Amino acid sequence: MSAFRVEVRVMPRAALLDPQGQAVEHALHALGFAEVGHVRMGKHLVLEVTAPSRDEALARARAMCDRLLANPVIEDYDLAVDGEVPGGTAR
Amino acid sequence: MSAFRVEVRVMPRAALLDPQGQAVEHALHALGFAEVGHVRMGKHLVLEVTAPSRDEALARARAMCDRLLANPVIEDYDLAVDGEVPGGTAR
Repeated sequence: MSAFRVEVRVMPRAALLDPQGQAVEHALHALGFAEVGHVRMGKHLVLEVTAPSRDEALARARAMCDRLLANPVIEDYDLAVDGEVPGGTAR
Repeated sequence: MSAFRVEVRVMPRAALLDPQGQAVEHALHALGFAEVGHVRMGKHLVLEVTAPSRDEALARARAMCDRLLANPVIEDYDLAVDGEVPGGTAR
């Protein structure tokens, strides 16, 4: 069993309005950053998952996204295993 | 001038408590995901930045992080230019 660091990116679906992203975009324009547009804002999570293999860690992280971390009606998620945690002892 | 898609990851600094991450970790344990630990939670932003070059887009995005997107007292950020937006016309 090793501990793997999994990076999870949860973003609002492309077809949906993103009021948080719009608020950030307006604030950036108000600060003089006229060159920015199409701001989208979501969540980023870093998890340590203890599993026998990289693929198994990814599968468990995907299950966590489906159960809790992302709302499939309004959000999409991406997962990537970022590497093994040296001496990792996640529960 | 082209539009570049810039990915921004803003995470709580490693030395600080992350109450949001802890709440997610407890919720995952309550759902039976005992193999997860050290959950950290931050923000992920995607920006389209119009600039003459990739490097210039990155520099402007860094300025946006310093001014608005990240709080340097409690957060760290990473930036990456994810590519040119085809036919991009960010303001």
